[in-house]
This record gives sequence, structure tokens and C-alpha cells, in this order.
Amino acid sequence: MSRSVELIEVAPRDGLQNEKVPVSTADKIALIERSFAAGFRKVEVTSFVNPKRVPQMADAEAVMAGILPRYADRTLVGLALNVKGAERALAAGCNQINYVCVASETFARKNQNASTAELVAGAGEVARLVKAAGKPLAISIATAFGCPFDGEVPVERVMAIAAEVLRLDPYEIGFADTIGCGVPSQVTDMLARAKALSATVKLRCHFHDTRNTGVANAIAAVAAGVDYLDASVGGVGGCPFAPNATGNVATEDLVYTFNRMGISTGLDIDRLIDTAHWLSGVLGKPLPAALSRAGVFPPRAA
Amino acid sequence: MSRSVELIEVAPRDGLQNEKVPVSTADKIALIERSFAAGFRKVEVTSFVNPKRVPQMADAEAVMAGILPRYADRTLVGLALNVKGAERALAAGCNQINYVCVASETFARKNQNASTAELVAGAGEVARLVKAAGKPLAISIATAFGCPFDGEVPVERVMAIAAEVLRLDPYEIGFADTIGCGVPSQVTDMLARAKALSATVKLRCHFHDTRNTGVANAIAAVAAGVDYLDASVGGVGGCPFAPNATGNVATEDLVYTFNRMGISTGLDIDRLIDTAHWLSGVLGKPLPAALSRAGVFPPRAA
Repeated sequence: MSRSVELIEVAPRDGLQNEKVPVSTADKIALIERSFAAGFRKVEVTSFVNPKRVPQMADAEAVMAGILPRYADRTLVGLALNVKGAERALAAGCNQINYVCVASETFARKNQNASTAELVAGAGEVARLVKAAGKPLAISIATAFGCPFDGEVPVERVMAIAAEVLRLDPYEIGFADTIGCGVPSQVTDMLARAKALSATVKLRCHFHDTRNTGVANAIAAVAAGVDYLDASVGGVGGCPFAPNATGNVATEDLVYTFNRMGISTGLDIDRLIDTAHWLSGVLGKPLPAALSRAGVFPPRAA
Repeated sequence: MSRSVELIEVAPRDGLQNEKVPVSTADKIALIERSFAAGFRKVEVTSFVNPKRVPQMADAEAVMAGILPRYADRTLVGLALNVKGAERALAAGCNQINYVCVASETFARKNQNASTAELVAGAGEVARLVKAAGKPLAISIATAFGCPFDGEVPVERVMAIAAEVLRLDPYEIGFADTIGCGVPSQVTDMLARAKALSATVKLRCHFHDTRNTGVANAIAAVAAGVDYLDASVGGVGGCPFAPNATGNVATEDLVYTFNRMGISTGLDIDRLIDTAHWLSGVLGKPLPAALSRAGVFPPRAA
């Protein structure tokens, strides 16, 4: 078991993108500022997606403009679903692009109106663009642990996509449990296979806590030597295609667990809890994370 | 990793005992019937506690009377906090007694108005009684992973209590994370130490999902060779001394995870989900379990 892991705060992007209540640009910027203040070195700040499809992300450029001058030394990840998104993210100053391929055909069609093969081809175009700009590229494989429409996604299919996109020499490859159906044995298997494909690419996992397996999956990922874990403060988020789903695995739930297991994240759990309470106020509802409700253990002295 | 584990349904006892809404004896009996129908061989049916302290358990004898004639071939566990409780449980026909010691002094005082040493001495009295009746005895060590009042509970203290009570030759010893603060590394360590103390006693763990570590802890327990895991359908329950705590780790969340990891429980997940929805109706509120909201994966064919 590795004694440390780096978390990536994705609440500003995956956490907010499905929220019905519009969140102001100022609050998005405040969320990112709070994340950096809690110790994150890498934040997925926004998604450069068609604003008609995801209205919450319509202010992507404005968010970046509010952050960039002060945090140019951090990793500001912009999500891109296609070449146009990658162009916008680079123009806005993102110093890492996260491009999404989807492992299952029906979800690929619903998410990006393309086939898996077309998304893999798109990765090549995005890679050329991002390389020309001298920035690192992350490639995420969505529905890697299962698809809400197509059901089981064979690990061989996921690894075939991984092998294809690894030829583009990305900095990082991410395996996303988009609908929170994965279990630790899948994580262990997938990461071992990924390590066999490449000894150098950075490995990331992205878990949703929809079926209460997020923390267990994250621990399995650390045990398997993952480099990065996505997490969302307050456990905010949720997939629009999975009704009643909870969101990304909560940052503070992971940090609590890792702290007590002696796995270092470099993050300040009290600031995370404070941010979760603040974000709950911004969104006007309780958030799913357990820790922000129960409090740390041992309890802080009064 | 063991390929199977036996779950014990504790919703009728730990799940209900802190519910403010009185649950009828008929509904308690129905919950136990549903548990057996879902495949449980062992259910913690009730607690023989002072009804002034826990009004929800005032009908313990009536619940047992409604269950006993039809389920005498199953293990009907009665919880006892003292000799009087054990006498009542045996008289009511329980064929296993679960006696509780508390590892931390403040919680011991609040839970049973005694010191840890007095509770260990009480275990001796209960063991004589239960042995004379020819029934197996389980001994639970509460706050084994941490105390809401005393904070950290050193594992050496827990194991010293375990060593003491093992001299009584119980059938089973249980380690309870009463306030849901434990993490998998603690589980692994505690079970390894327990195995070193006794090669024959059955080992049980009891997890609460208060800080979102319940599923991960359960997996760690199976990996460490635990014999039994307590769980509560719907994730119902919660400690009266831990505000905003969620309840026991949810039966259906564990069964989902174990099913997909190839760890057999012998339980019918569709019946469990159905029971969770039924119990939600009985209690008039949504229950914390994730799976009953999100549904199984892959989704059932419509």
C-alpha cells in the first residue's frame, strides 16, 4: 500500500455540472480558491462543453479568467469532449486538458454524439493540438466499470481503448466509474492491466459513490498504485443519466479514511469540511458526504 | 480473500432501537420474517434491555413469541447488556445470546452504567448462565475502533478485553465500530490480533457507516477471514450518542459489493431491496442505504 496519493478536486466541474441551481461565476471561483487553500495542487476547474447542453458550464472562460493570474503555478484542468473544447480550454489558459472517451456505445452517443471509435480518433486530434501547445494531456475512459444502458463493459474492451490512446503518449490516463457501479476487485484488475500496458503513464481513477463503493474503490486504487484520485468536496455531483445517484466520492470522506490509514494526501480536512458546509449553503441543500455531517474522529477539542 | 461470508441481519435490534417512531410488534416480526425469506440464517431479533431506557425494545418477549415457533431452526440472537437481560433472552427462547462489553470507560458508563472491568466480570456471569442453558454465547466489544467521548481506543486495550473474555470460551467474539469511525487498516490489524489469540473462536465485525467507511471495512474484514458481519437492511439505525450519524452498514450495499466481487453471502438482493423499501414506509422516511436508491447493476431487464 502506497503511503501517499494525490487527490484532484473535481467539484467545480463534475460536481456542479448537473446542479439545476445556477451557481454564480464568483462562487465557482471561490470554490476553486478554497480548494487550493485546502492544499490541492490540481483542480478540474471547468468543462469546455456546449453551453446549450450543459448550461452550468457556460461561464467556463470567465471562471478561468478569474483564476488564472493567481494560480498559474497550479494545474488547472479543463475538460474537453472534442477538438473545439480542447481549443477553448487551451485558449483560456488551462495547463492540462482532460479529454473523455466513453467505453460503451450507447453512453458515447448520449454523452458526445459519437461512437467509441470516433471518440478514440478524436483523442488523436486533441493530442496533436495539446502537444503543439506544449501542455500535458489526460485521457479519461468513461463507463469503464459499467454502463447504465449497455450494462457490463468488459475489461478487455476498456483496455483495448487504453492501448489505443496510450499510443498518443498522454501524461495521464483515467478510468472513470461514471455511474458508481464498480467494486474494488475491478479496480485492482484494471490498474494491474494498465500498469502492464505502460510503465510511465500516470494513472487516475474517478469514482462515484452511487452504490456506496467509492471509498472502498479508492482504497483499492491506492493499494494498486494509482497516482491520482478524483474527488468532489461534499460528495456533490451526480450523473444526469442515473436517477437518484449520489455524486463523486467525497473528498473529505477519502481524506478522513486515508489520514487514519496513514496515507498522506497533503490536504487540510478542516478546510475541506468548512468548504463542504459553504457549498451546501451555495446549493441550498444538504450534500451527500458523510464526514461533513458526522465530523472527524477523534472529535476536535471544544 | 475468502470467497464467502455470513451476514447477520441486525435491523430488528440495532436498526430499530434508536428510531423515535414506535414500530409495532407485527412490523418487527414481519421484518424478521422478511430477513429469513431473503436467506439469513442468523438474525439479531431484539434486545432484552430495560424498556425505560430503550422503549422501542419493550416488546422483546412478544417479538420472540411471534417468531420462535416457526424459526426454531434458525439462529435467533437476543442482545443482553447484563445478567437480567440474558435470563430474559434465554427464557424467551433465544438460541444465541450476544452480550456487550464496552472498551472505553465513558461509553461503558453511559451504555451500561458500569466500568469496563465490571462489564468483563459480567461476561463471566452471563457465560455461566448461557452455558448452563446449553446455548452459544457471542460477546461484543463495543467502541473497539474509537469512542465518541474518550477518543482513541488503543487496540491493545481492545485485545486485552478480548483475551479476558476468550477465557470464557465463547462461540463468537465481535468487534464493534459503534460510532463508525474505523478504517480498514484497523480492521486488518484487529482481526489478525484476534486470530493470534484464538484459532477456534468465530470472529464477527459490526460496522456503522457514519463516516462512509463501512463497506471498505467490511471488505477488509472478509480479506482478514472474518466469519460474520452484522448489517442492517436499508442502513437503518444510528447511535443516540453520535448526532447525525448514519446507521449500520447497509445489508444490500454489502451484498451488492460482495456479489460483484465474487464473495458469496447466500442472500437474495432483490428481496433485500424490497424489504428496504417496505421498511422505509414503516418508518416514514428515506433510509440511508445507497443501493435501494440507485438500484442494482447491471439494471434488471424491464
